[in-house]
Amino acid sequence: MKKVVTFGELLMCLSTPGAQRLKQASNLEVDFGGAEANVAVSLAQFGDNVSFVSRVPANDLGERALMAVRQFNVNTENVRWGGKRLGLYFFENGAVYRPSQVIYDREHSSISEIKKGEFDWETIFQDADWFHWTGITPALSEQAAEVTLEALIAARKLGLKISGDYNYRSSLWNWGKSAAEVMPELLQYCDIMSGVHPDVDVLKAGVKEEDFRQAGDEMLSKYPNCKLVVFTTRGSHSASHNTWSGSIYDGNKVFSSKTYDLTHIVDRVGGGDSFMAALIYALRHYDDLQQVVDFAAGASALKHFVPGDGNICSIEEVESLLQNVNGLIKR
Amino acid sequence: MKKVVTFGELLMCLSTPGAQRLKQASNLEVDFGGAEANVAVSLAQFGDNVSFVSRVPANDLGERALMAVRQFNVNTENVRWGGKRLGLYFFENGAVYRPSQVIYDREHSSISEIKKGEFDWETIFQDADWFHWTGITPALSEQAAEVTLEALIAARKLGLKISGDYNYRSSLWNWGKSAAEVMPELLQYCDIMSGVHPDVDVLKAGVKEEDFRQAGDEMLSKYPNCKLVVFTTRGSHSASHNTWSGSIYDGNKVFSSKTYDLTHIVDRVGGGDSFMAALIYALRHYDDLQQVVDFAAGASALKHFVPGDGNICSIEEVESLLQNVNGLIKR
Amino acid sequence: MKKVVTFGELLMCLSTPGAQRLKQASNLEVDFGGAEANVAVSLAQFGDNVSFVSRVPANDLGERALMAVRQFNVNTENVRWGGKRLGLYFFENGAVYRPSQVIYDREHSSISEIKKGEFDWETIFQDADWFHWTGITPALSEQAAEVTLEALIAARKLGLKISGDYNYRSSLWNWGKSAAEVMPELLQYCDIMSGVHPDVDVLKAGVKEEDFRQAGDEMLSKYPNCKLVVFTTRGSHSASHNTWSGSIYDGNKVFSSKTYDLTHIVDRVGGGDSFMAALIYALRHYDDLQQVVDFAAGASALKHFVPGDGNICSIEEVESLLQNVNGLIKR
Amino acid sequence: MKKVVTFGELLMCLSTPGAQRLKQASNLEVDFGGAEANVAVSLAQFGDNVSFVSRVPANDLGERALMAVRQFNVNTENVRWGGKRLGLYFFENGAVYRPSQVIYDREHSSISEIKKGEFDWETIFQDADWFHWTGITPALSEQAAEVTLEALIAARKLGLKISGDYNYRSSLWNWGKSAAEVMPELLQYCDIMSGVHPDVDVLKAGVKEEDFRQAGDEMLSKYPNCKLVVFTTRGSHSASHNTWSGSIYDGNKVFSSKTYDLTHIVDRVGGGDSFMAALIYALRHYDDLQQVVDFAAGASALKHFVPGDGNICSIEEVESLLQNVNGLIKR
Amino acid sequence: MKKVVTFGELLMCLSTPGAQRLKQASNLEVDFGGAEANVAVSLAQFGDNVSFVSRVPANDLGERALMAVRQFNVNTENVRWGGKRLGLYFFENGAVYRPSQVIYDREHSSISEIKKGEFDWETIFQDADWFHWTGITPALSEQAAEVTLEALIAARKLGLKISGDYNYRSSLWNWGKSAAEVMPELLQYCDIMSGVHPDVDVLKAGVKEEDFRQAGDEMLSKYPNCKLVVFTTRGSHSASHNTWSGSIYDGNKVFSSKTYDLTHIVDRVGGGDSFMAALIYALRHYDDLQQVVDFAAGASALKHFVPGDGNICSIEEVESLLQNVNGLIKR
Amino acid sequence: MKKVVTFGELLMCLSTPGAQRLKQASNLEVDFGGAEANVAVSLAQFGDNVSFVSRVPANDLGERALMAVRQFNVNTENVRWGGKRLGLYFFENGAVYRPSQVIYDREHSSISEIKKGEFDWETIFQDADWFHWTGITPALSEQAAEVTLEALIAARKLGLKISGDYNYRSSLWNWGKSAAEVMPELLQYCDIMSGVHPDVDVLKAGVKEEDFRQAGDEMLSKYPNCKLVVFTTRGSHSASHNTWSGSIYDGNKVFSSKTYDLTHIVDRVGGGDSFMAALIYALRHYDDLQQVVDFAAGASALKHFVPGDGNICSIEEVESLLQNVNGLIKR
Repeated sequence: MKKVVTFGELLMCLSTPGAQRLKQASNLEVDFGGAEANVAVSLAQFGDNVSFVSRVPANDLGERALMAVRQFNVNTENVRWGGKRLGLYFFENGAVYRPSQVIYDREHSSISEIKKGEFDWETIFQDADWFHWTGITPALSEQAAEVTLEALIAARKLGLKISGDYNYRSSLWNWGKSAAEVMPELLQYCDIMSGVHPDVDVLKAGVKEEDFRQAGDEMLSKYPNCKLVVFTTRGSHSASHNTWSGSIYDGNKVFSSKTYDLTHIVDRVGGGDSFMAALIYALRHYDDLQQVVDFAAGASALKHFVPGDGNICSIEEVESLLQNVNGLIKR
Repeated sequence: MKKVVTFGELLMCLSTPGAQRLKQASNLEVDFGGAEANVAVSLAQFGDNVSFVSRVPANDLGERALMAVRQFNVNTENVRWGGKRLGLYFFENGAVYRPSQVIYDREHSSISEIKKGEFDWETIFQDADWFHWTGITPALSEQAAEVTLEALIAARKLGLKISGDYNYRSSLWNWGKSAAEVMPELLQYCDIMSGVHPDVDVLKAGVKEEDFRQAGDEMLSKYPNCKLVVFTTRGSHSASHNTWSGSIYDGNKVFSSKTYDLTHIVDRVGGGDSFMAALIYALRHYDDLQQVVDFAAGASALKHFVPGDGNICSIEEVESLLQNVNGLIKR
Repeated sequence: MKKVVTFGELLMCLSTPGAQRLKQASNLEVDFGGAEANVAVSLAQFGDNVSFVSRVPANDLGERALMAVRQFNVNTENVRWGGKRLGLYFFENGAVYRPSQVIYDREHSSISEIKKGEFDWETIFQDADWFHWTGITPALSEQAAEVTLEALIAARKLGLKISGDYNYRSSLWNWGKSAAEVMPELLQYCDIMSGVHPDVDVLKAGVKEEDFRQAGDEMLSKYPNCKLVVFTTRGSHSASHNTWSGSIYDGNKVFSSKTYDLTHIVDRVGGGDSFMAALIYALRHYDDLQQVVDFAAGASALKHFVPGDGNICSIEEVESLLQNVNGLIKR
Repeated sequence: MKKVVTFGELLMCLSTPGAQRLKQASNLEVDFGGAEANVAVSLAQFGDNVSFVSRVPANDLGERALMAVRQFNVNTENVRWGGKRLGLYFFENGAVYRPSQVIYDREHSSISEIKKGEFDWETIFQDADWFHWTGITPALSEQAAEVTLEALIAARKLGLKISGDYNYRSSLWNWGKSAAEVMPELLQYCDIMSGVHPDVDVLKAGVKEEDFRQAGDEMLSKYPNCKLVVFTTRGSHSASHNTWSGSIYDGNKVFSSKTYDLTHIVDRVGGGDSFMAALIYALRHYDDLQQVVDFAAGASALKHFVPGDGNICSIEEVESLLQNVNGLIKR
Repeated sequence: MKKVVTFGELLMCLSTPGAQRLKQASNLEVDFGGAEANVAVSLAQFGDNVSFVSRVPANDLGERALMAVRQFNVNTENVRWGGKRLGLYFFENGAVYRPSQVIYDREHSSISEIKKGEFDWETIFQDADWFHWTGITPALSEQAAEVTLEALIAARKLGLKISGDYNYRSSLWNWGKSAAEVMPELLQYCDIMSGVHPDVDVLKAGVKEEDFRQAGDEMLSKYPNCKLVVFTTRGSHSASHNTWSGSIYDGNKVFSSKTYDLTHIVDRVGGGDSFMAALIYALRHYDDLQQVVDFAAGASALKHFVPGDGNICSIEEVESLLQNVNGLIKR
Repeated sequence: MKKVVTFGELLMCLSTPGAQRLKQASNLEVDFGGAEANVAVSLAQFGDNVSFVSRVPANDLGERALMAVRQFNVNTENVRWGGKRLGLYFFENGAVYRPSQVIYDREHSSISEIKKGEFDWETIFQDADWFHWTGITPALSEQAAEVTLEALIAARKLGLKISGDYNYRSSLWNWGKSAAEVMPELLQYCDIMSGVHPDVDVLKAGVKEEDFRQAGDEMLSKYPNCKLVVFTTRGSHSASHNTWSGSIYDGNKVFSSKTYDLTHIVDRVGGGDSFMAALIYALRHYDDLQQVVDFAAGASALKHFVPGDGNICSIEEVESLLQNVNGLIKR
C-alpha cells in the first residue's frame, strides 16, 4: 500500500505530573507532539506506511524529537536538520473547573524559519497517495505558509488525495497576515476538510443534522475541490467530563457516529488529530462512510484515555470498543 | 484462634504508573499478588492468623515476593524454595473506554513445576481450621492440579473447612486438560464455593434473587458437600465506573448486600479476592449470614479504592463504611 | 494598600503519592500548610500584601517551611525562630468510599511552646488593616491560646478588622480546656466569623436560607462585635464527589453563591481556608456582598482541583470560572 | 537454634533523594531504622531467629514501621502498641565536603513514654539466648532507661548472653541525667561491649594494636562481666570516602580485620549496627575470633554500599566479598 | 553504504533505581538490550545502516522492545512476531564492594523457540555487507543454535564479512550441549573474533603484547577463516572503578589503545558490545588498525558513563574524547 | 546593612535525572538559575539583603522563576514583567569521560528584549551599596548591553561598589558585536573583576603566584577603577573529579586559598557564581583578604556537592568546612 505524508511542526511537550500546576512542579514529563505528527503516529500504529516531514534543530533535542515518532514506526527520513530551536509547549492538565493550560513557546522554531525550496516535494511524495496538513503550519510564519503551499501544489500535481484540518488557534497567527487572508488559497487544494464547527451550543441545543449540512455546504461551495467535510463535536461539561462524536458530510448525506460519554478524561490533547488519523485510515481501508465515521469517532474517544498527544491504540482496540466491551479487564 | 491456610501462586506484578500504557512506560511499579495470596493478606490485615503456601525460586525475586506478603503478617514458613522463575504479570490500568490489560508471563514458574509430595500437608494444616484455594492453581500445570488435589484430600481428612473460588481464566488452561475436566473432582471438597455467576446482563436486566437461587441450586446439587454458594455481582458501566454487590445462597435463602456505586475506580484487580477474604473472616467471626455478606461486600467495595492486588484495609475501615460515613476526612 | 496579617502554625504535610495508602508508600510528597498559612498564600496569589506570623524551629525544616510560603510572596519577617520541632501531618488522599486520612503529629511543636510577649504585635500590625486567625491555634496549647488573645487585643486596639474561623477539630483540644471554655472570649473580637454550620443533612434536606439565618443570628447575638457570619456548605456524595457553596449573612439578608458540583476532586484539604482567603480579598476589594460570596465560592471550588493545601489560583482564574468557561483548554 | 532479642526505638527515616538537600526536596524517601532494629534486620537476613522489642503508636505509621522490619523476617510479636507518636529523623546524604545531616524528631515518641512493667521480659526471653541493646535507648528518657535496666536484669537472670553498644550521641541525652551517670550501671550486664574508640587520629596516626589494648583493658577492668570489647575504626577522608576495619579484644589478644577502602560510599548510616549484627552472628556460628572479626568487618563494609539503615546482605554475599571478588557482575 | 545485520535476542531489562537492591525496589526502570541489539543501536548512532533480526512475542511487550531499538534508527522489518514471552533480566547496579547482579529470566523466550527456515536469510542479507552474531544466541536453545548456523551459511554464501563475539556465559548453556561442542562449528565462519581473554591477572600482572599474541595465534590457527582477533581488557579495582583498553591482533602485530581509568562507573553492562560496535564501524570507515582500536576503546570507555545497555554516543563525542577533552562542560 | 543588587537573566534549567542523557530522559527536573541570580541566592542564604533585577514573561513560567529565587529570601520587587518567553537551558550532567552538556534556548527571551529606560535604576539602587553584574547579560542582545551600561552609570553615580564577572561564553555573543568590542566600556565601572584566567595548564604546570600577578596587572592597568582581580582555578581530571582554589590580587599581593580536591562532583554548574557570592559576602563582612579568599573558596568548593545552580549553603556550613570537618555525619 502507498504511504501517507504529513507535514508540520514537532514540539517538545513539557507537562506537569498528575494534577500539579506549573507553579508547583519540580519535574516535568517529556513528550513530543504536534497536530501532524500525532496523525502520523496514530496512522503508523494502525499499520499504515507513514512519512512525517518537518524540520528540527541539529542537536540532541531535535534527535530526541525524531526518536519519539520513529519508535512508533513513522518514517523520518524526510525531516531536515537546521534552525536554532525546537518548538516547545508547557502543559498543565486540568480537572473539572480548572481548565487545562497550554503555554506555547514555539516562536523562532526550526520549522518556522524553513525556506522555500528546502524540501524536494516530488521526491517526498514518491510512492505516496495521501497528504495531510493543518492550519497550524501556515500560522507559524510566512515561510511556513509558503512551504505549505509549495507542498499542496506538488501533492495536487502528483495526484495525491489531500486532507486539511483548519485547526484555528488565534494565539498562533502573529506573523502579519490573518488566517482569513492565508487559509482560503491553501484550502482550495483539499479533498477532505475538517476543523470547522457548526455554531451551536453542543450541550444545551445539541447539534442537528441540519447544522452539519449547513456548515458543510458552506465549505463545499467555497472550496469546489472538496468532497467531504468532517466534524468532531465536543460537549464540555467540565475539564474532566466531555461528550464526543464525529460526523461526515459528503454534500448529500450526514453520517454521524454515536456520542461517547467521556466521564473521567485522562488527556484530551490530540483528540481532533486522533479523529483525523482514524478517518484517513478508514477512508483508505473501508468503503462505507458510516463505518468510516464510526471508526474515527471510536478511535478518538479512546484517545481521551491515553496520556500524551498521540493515539497509540491499535485497530484491534478500536474494533473492540466498537463491539461494545464495557471496560472489562483484558487478560 | 486457629489459622487459615491459602495455597497458590505468588506473582510479581509490574504495572505502569498512573494511566500510562505499557508501550509508554519507562518504569514499572513493583507489586506482588495472586488470588490466594491476596486472600491471605486481607485476612491477616483483619487480624486472623494466616499461613500462605507456595513455591518461589531461590533468588532475590523469590525472597522479595515473600517479603511482600510477610510484611502484612502473613506466615510464609511453609513456602518452598525451588524452580527457575517467579511468575509475572504486566498490568496497565484502564480508564473509561480503555479496558485494563493484563499480560501474563507465568508459564514455567516455580509453582507450576511443583512435584507431588513436596508439601507436607499434615504439618502445614496443623492448628488450622480453614483451607482456601482457587481454580487458578490447577490451571497452571498438571502437577499443580495434582498438588491441589493432594491438599484438598488432606484438608478434608483433617477436618478443615474448605472454600474454593472457581476463578475461571480461559487463557490459563493450557496444559492439556480443560477446567471442565479437572475442576469437578476438586470442587467436591468445597464447603463454600464462589466464582460462578448467573448468566444475566447485570446493568440492563439486573440480577434477581431467582437468578442466584437457580445458579446456586445447580452447584449445590452437583457438589453435595457444598453448603454455601457465594456470588459477587459486577455491573460495568466503564473501566472507571462499576457497580458491585455480594450475595450468599445457603440452599434456602439468598442474602444480598446493598449495591455499591464504584464511581472513580482506583484498581479493581483483586476485587473478588477481597470479597472472599472478608467472607472467610466474617464466617469465622459472625453468625448472621446477612452480616457476613454485608461485611464482605463492604470490604471488597473498599478494595476498588486501594492500589495493588491486596485489600489492605482494616476491620475498622470496613465497619466505618458500613456505618455510612460519606468520604469525610478522618482526622 | 494595607496588609493582612494571619497567625498560626505552619506544618509540614507528608502525603502519599496518587491513591497510595500510608501503609504502601515508599516515598512521601512534601508540602507545607496550616489554616492560616493557607489563607496567607491564597491572598498573596490574589496580589494582596500579606504577613504571616508563626514560630518555627531553627533548622533546615523550619527554613524549608518558610521557603514554602515565601515563594508565593507571603512576608515571613515576623516569624520567630525557636522551639524544638516543626509540626507535621501525614496525609493519605481518599477515593470514593475510602475517606482521606490525616494523622497529626504536631504536639510539642515550636508554636505550641510559644511564650506570651514573644511577639511584638504593635510592630507586626503596623501598616496592617486586617487580622485573620482560626480556632486551631488556641487548640494547640495554653500558651498558644494566650498569645492568640494577646494578638486579638492588639489588633482591636489598633483598629484592624478581625476575621476568625472556628475550625473545630476535636482531636486537637488536648491541653486541658475545651473549645467551649476558650473560644467565646476570643470570638468576642471578631468582625467576621466563619466555621459554624447549620445542623442539617446537606444532601438530603438541603440547607435553606432560614437555616443560615438561624445559625447566623445565634452568633450575632452571642458576639455583638460580629457583623458578618459566613458559611461554606459541603455535601459529601463520596470522597471523590462533593457539592459546594458559600453563604454570607449580615444579620439582615443571606447572600448565597451557586452550588458547585465537584465531581472528580483532586484535593479537598484547605477548601475552607481558600474560601476564607477569597472572602477577605473580596470584602477588601468589592462592595457588593453577592459579588463577595460568588468570588469566595468560585475560588474555593477551584481549590478542590489544585493539589496541596494552598489555593494557588489567580484572580483571573477565579473570574474566568465565574464567567462559566466549561473547562476548555486555555492556549 | 535459639533466638536473639534486640530492644530499642524504631524510627521513620525521611531522606532526600540522591544528593538533594532538605531545603530542596519536594519528596522524601521513607525508610525505617534504629540501631537495635538494624541489628535485628541484618541478623534475620543471615537466617537467625530474631525478635525485636519496641513500642509504636497504634496508627498506620506504627503499623508501617513494623511492616518494614517484619518483611525481613524479624519477629514483632513482642512490640507493644501505645503512645502518641513514632520517632522520626530527617536525613540528607552528604558528598565529599558536605557532611551528611541528621535532624532528629524523636522526643515524646512512643518508646520514650514506656512504663516499667509494660514488657513481660520473662516471656519475651523465652527460647532466646542473646540480648542486644544500645546506649541510645537509655538516652531517650528516664523511663526508657529504667526499662532497659529491667530487661538487662531479666536477661542476666535467664542466662542470656548480652551485647551492648555504647553508641553515644550527645544530642540525645536531654532528660536530666548524663550518659556518664546512667550507662555504667547498665554496662555491668554486658558480656560484649562496643561503641568505644581509642582516642587517636585514624587517618594520620593510624590505630595501633596497643591503642585497642589500652582502650579495651580500661573497659574490661571497669566492667568485670565483660569478656570481649569490639571496635570499629573509621578513617574519614571525606563524606564519600572512608576507610573501615574492625577489631576484637578478648583481654589477651587483639584480632583485627583487613582495612576496607570505601571509595564511593552509598550510605554509611548503620555501619556500626551492621558490624554488631555480623559480630553476633559470627560469635554464635564461628569459633575463631579472627574469623568473627573478618566476617563482621566484611559485612559492615558491604553495608556502606546498600541504601537504607539495615544491612540487607546475605551470608553468601559476605563470604563472596571475603573471598575477594573484585566487583565483577554476578550473572 | 551497505547495511550491517545483527541477530540475537532482545530482552527487557528491569533495573533498580540508583543504588537500590532488588529486595528494596518499589519500582523498576525499563530498558531493552541484548548483546546484538546493543551493537545495532551503537552502530546506528554512528550513522550506519543497520538491520536487527530477532523474534518477539506478538503483544505490547514485544512491540515495546522493538520501539526501543527502532527509535535509534535500527531497522526492525526483519524481526518476526511469535512465541510466548519476551526474555527478561533483572539488574541491580553494584557499588565498590557490592557487585552488580543480573538475574536472567529468558528461558522459553520467543527467540529460543525459533524454528529453522523461519527467517529468509537471503532476503535479510540483501544490500548487506556485514553480519554480526554472538555466542549468546546458540546458548539459548538447540533451535537458536541451528538458526545461527543457517544465518552463517547464508552470510558466507552471499559474501558478507562476519564478526562473532564468543561472549561465554556459563549460566546460559543449559539446553544439552556445551559451548565447547557447539561453538567451533559456528566460529569457522568468522572473519573477526572477539570475546576471548588471555589468562592473566589484569591488575597485578598486566597484559603484555605477548599474551595477546599467544591467545590470538591460538584462535587464528584453530579458525583459518579468521583474520583478526580483538580483545578488551578490564581490570576491576571494584564495582565502581575499572581500567579498560582494547587490542587487535592481525596475526602479525598487536595494536593496543591507551588504558582508560574508569573511576566512577555509571553502568558497565554492554561495555564489550559497545567496543564491538565501534570496532565494526571503524573497520568499515578507517584503514589504520591503530585508529580502529583507538576509536573502539574510546567509544566503549564512554559507554561506562551512559546508563542502559546501548552506547548512545555519537562519532563526534568519541572523537572529542580521543582529542582528550577533560570533562569540561560542553555549552 | 545595605543591600546588594544583582542584574541578569533568570533561566529555567531542565536537567536529566541522575546520569541519564537528554536522548534518554522521559522526565526533566526543573530548576532555575543564571549567573546573577545564583549570586543573589547564595548571598541571601548568607543572610545579606539582596535584590535581584530581571525581566520575565507575564505567565506562570515567569512567576515560577521568581518563586524559585524568592523562596531563598531574594527580593524580586524590581523584576519587570514582559516579553514573550523565559530563557531556558537543557542540562545533562556528565561523568568522568562524558562531559556535561548545556543546550541553551535563550534567544528572544524577555530580558534580551528589554528596552532602555525600562528600569528606574535610581529607585532600584536606593539603600544599596553593591552592584554585581556579569558578561553574560551584554552578550544576550544589544538592548541588554545598553541596559547594563545604564545600570553601571547609575551605580557609579550613586556610589555603589561594583563587581563584574567576565564570564565569557563564545556561544552567546551572536547579536552583532563581539565581547572584545563591548566589554571594555562596561568593565571600566568595576571595582572588582573576576572571570579571567591565567593562560596555563592547571593540572600539568600548576598556576603560580606570578601567573596571577601577571594576569591581574594586565587588568588593573587596563581598568584603572578596578582595585581587586579575583581568580578561580579549576583543574579538570575528569567530569567527576576536579581541583579547585581561589585567589585575590590587589595589585600588591596574591592571596590564595588551599586547593580543594573535588573527588565525586555532584554538580559543578554555578561554581564560579558561588565563589563570587561568597567573595562579595566576605568583602562586606571581613577585613582580611586571606580570610576573604578562604571563605570564598570554601563556599564554592561546597557548591560542587549541592545539586542545582545556586549554592544554598549557610555561613555555618562554610565555616565548619574551613575548620576541617572531614565529612562526618552532623546529627
